Amino acid sequence: MAQLSDESARTDLLNRLKRAEGQLRGVQRMVESGDSCLAIAGQMAAVRKALDAAYVRMTVCFMQQELQSRLAPDAKRGQELTAVLDEVQTLLGKVR
Amino acid sequence: MAQLSDESARTDLLNRLKRAEGQLRGVQRMVESGDSCLAIAGQMAAVRKALDAAYVRMTVCFMQQELQSRLAPDAKRGQELTAVLDEVQTLLGKVR
Amino acid sequence: MAQLSDESARTDLLNRLKRAEGQLRGVQRMVESGDSCLAIAGQMAAVRKALDAAYVRMTVCFMQQELQSRLAPDAKRGQELTAVLDEVQTLLGKVR
Amino acid sequence: MAQLSDESARTDLLNRLKRAEGQLRGVQRMVESGDSCLAIAGQMAAVRKALDAAYVRMTVCFMQQELQSRLAPDAKRGQELTAVLDEVQTLLGKVR
Repeated sequence: MAQLSDESARTDLLNRLKRAEGQLRGVQRMVESGDSCLAIAGQMAAVRKALDAAYVRMTVCFMQQELQSRLAPDAKRGQELTAVLDEVQTLLGKVR
Repeated sequence: MAQLSDESARTDLLNRLKRAEGQLRGVQRMVESGDSCLAIAGQMAAVRKALDAAYVRMTVCFMQQELQSRLAPDAKRGQELTAVLDEVQTLLGKVR
Repeated sequence: MAQLSDESARTDLLNRLKRAEGQLRGVQRMVESGDSCLAIAGQMAAVRKALDAAYVRMTVCFMQQELQSRLAPDAKRGQELTAVLDEVQTLLGKVR
Repeated sequence: MAQLSDESARTDLLNRLKRAEGQLRGVQRMVESGDSCLAIAGQMAAVRKALDAAYVRMTVCFMQQELQSRLAPDAKRGQELTAVLDEVQTLLGKVR
């Protein structure tokens, strides 16, 4: 399977992963400073959510890239493609 | 957002949901006949997996339908579209 | 591993599973009557949540049963046990 | 809710979180070096799994700590408690 070739898509994905990494280091600090298990669980849920969102984003970027390059849509179809991908992103964010 | 208009896509989705419902009734029988909690947990995980697969399938069918109708690809582009959607389905099945 | 022997725990679990089954049949009706994919996805997420809650409930009931029967706590310790299990249920509901 | 007071439980949890952080940095390197989206998705699934396992571990450690300190079981009951918590850990690892 192809990789993400679009620079801005990769940067966006990397930023999301870095944020998730920052949150995960935050969880470690919470453990070290003796925060309650409930607070730690809440923060771990936030990391999981961030990872899931990054994954959905990567999937949508992948689709966009592949469909753009393989279908080479004209301007009007390109807009339709973007509209469909927006809906797919909403749909994928719905269950998780 | 649009609904699934393709008959075979709806039938496929309904069959998956019916199978998940059958599995879920199986879980209830296991509880009633006093199966071990571990066995019940395993079967509940199977229902969850079946639901997730149905959801991925619905998303891919939705994409196919919308992209087919809005982009109206010619035969060659139609094949490319199918190839991309196959890869997306693989990708979506990977994390869950 | 042991099964759920407590009658009320089994009834509670069965009721939860039946509700989830009802929701799952609701999803099928939505597909049949041509509801939007977004609405269907939302309802599928609700089924998943109901299953996850049933699973947490089963785990907590299992713990209660095993700890009650194996530790045979006196009244005061029995209250402590209940308090801990309440916190565990809250904790388990946090990430999913 | 209480925090993890047991030193070895906190160390174990921190080690798990650090490993997950290492895996998450691995995902970033994969994105930077242009690995395929499928390979990245697989590695993201691994991070998610590691986080979920850390969360289950924290929950079990929390239960052990609270039940030990609040029930103050004698040696024989202490063994029963450990046996139940082992089963709960298995059960919690089953669905996710």
